[in-house]
Amino acid sequence: MSKPKILITNDDGISAPGLRYLIEVMKELGDLVIIAPDKPQSGMAHAVTIQTPLRIHEIVNTPGYQEYSCSGTPVDCVKLGQKVIMKCNPDLIVSGINHGSNSSINVLYSGTMAAVIEGAMEDIPAIGFSLNDYAYHADFSHCAPYILTISKQVLGNGLPDGVCLNVNFPEKNSSPIKGIKVVRQAKAFWDESFDERKDPHRRSYFWLQGEFVCKDTADDTDQWALKNNYVSLVPVSIDLTAHHAMKEIKKWDFPANTSNQ
Amino acid sequence: MSKPKILITNDDGISAPGLRYLIEVMKELGDLVIIAPDKPQSGMAHAVTIQTPLRIHEIVNTPGYQEYSCSGTPVDCVKLGQKVIMKCNPDLIVSGINHGSNSSINVLYSGTMAAVIEGAMEDIPAIGFSLNDYAYHADFSHCAPYILTISKQVLGNGLPDGVCLNVNFPEKNSSPIKGIKVVRQAKAFWDESFDERKDPHRRSYFWLQGEFVCKDTADDTDQWALKNNYVSLVPVSIDLTAHHAMKEIKKWDFPANTSNQ
Repeated sequence: MSKPKILITNDDGISAPGLRYLIEVMKELGDLVIIAPDKPQSGMAHAVTIQTPLRIHEIVNTPGYQEYSCSGTPVDCVKLGQKVIMKCNPDLIVSGINHGSNSSINVLYSGTMAAVIEGAMEDIPAIGFSLNDYAYHADFSHCAPYILTISKQVLGNGLPDGVCLNVNFPEKNSSPIKGIKVVRQAKAFWDESFDERKDPHRRSYFWLQGEFVCKDTADDTDQWALKNNYVSLVPVSIDLTAHHAMKEIKKWDFPANTSNQ
Repeated sequence: MSKPKILITNDDGISAPGLRYLIEVMKELGDLVIIAPDKPQSGMAHAVTIQTPLRIHEIVNTPGYQEYSCSGTPVDCVKLGQKVIMKCNPDLIVSGINHGSNSSINVLYSGTMAAVIEGAMEDIPAIGFSLNDYAYHADFSHCAPYILTISKQVLGNGLPDGVCLNVNFPEKNSSPIKGIKVVRQAKAFWDESFDERKDPHRRSYFWLQGEFVCKDTADDTDQWALKNNYVSLVPVSIDLTAHHAMKEIKKWDFPANTSNQ
């Protein structure tokens, strides 16, 4: 039986320790194609490059292991990996391990998770892995068994139509991880401001800065799981329709001149 | 009573005719703050600028009407508009009118809709408007009454928690619009490829190209509404949890060494 074909990407860039760790872990599961951004692409979300052309740079190409860097975003990497390099759909896409949590609403800003959502849009099973530790030299050593067990489940069972997985690991600490929790995205927000500075020409420029705030203390969320030393696993939908809100909005009164112009 | 404060942005950039049209329409509803990208930002999705600082350029500043361009993405525009320019939450965010449809899965690539989703993340009622016509000089003249009626409903009723609106208009044609349909996001995909070219140094570069394919023919989708000359209105959720998939995934068998390491 041929080995599964696995596409690996991330948003921290081709040299990020989280990606290098993920590659080492995935080697035992299949033939790997790695294509990752040639520079950090954190916060690029689902951006695609359409104003400039894309470049690919081949780094390693040996049987069962191919590695490329790409001038674009994580979503560009998935599209190029699939269409230009593999010329077929991989059996699995894994993205990460991100340096920093992609739990809660961070899923919407995350390039790591956008690559995974792109997989679901293409009917390819896909998993994003992130560590709740922003440090460049973070300790990922507790993640391997969970990456393997979740990846094996997805390779074996597939995923429901239009669904991908957002997996977050608690930062390494002295207590062992308690297990995996299948949970929902916590309600939270970023309390943000801009740091205004003056350039040498006395013109203003702005840096975004902020703090993540979660007031959702329920015990069925990704934030709760991480806080309690569990691996959080959120199934993520590519259907953004707020089905629960349809009934209420259908009641709205649209004047005749617009509802039947 | 003071007029509502309305923040307007887009992803096609400050000079796009779709934005200029939207500004003219919204003038009768409130005091306007316009902050839009200084260059096209289509396909930038929910990207935020964190690797470089941001610049704002003031264009017009008269009572009830302020206009700025910004070096960043649509989501940057919302954050800067709210935190730096208005120093408070607007009563409403409107984004668009996008040159091109943001129906179906395009909501995930769209900078126009990302600005709106950012509003929902900040508890600000927000609506994205898009026209199913990519032409720069597209005819927007049939959109005004629908923009006004939907905006008035949202100003009056608010929106459910964590929900924003994705409104798409059919392209202008000889038949009058039949009305507004509250619908779900159609299942569809982009059938894509890369156009590989050689630069003068004989090195490859790639342009993304593709065709939108929708095989979802049900009559409760945004694609159906547009095709049948209705305005489509999809309530969009910032909670991406695939709640329908949780039960199935909770059944997965995680070996003891990982579920209770």
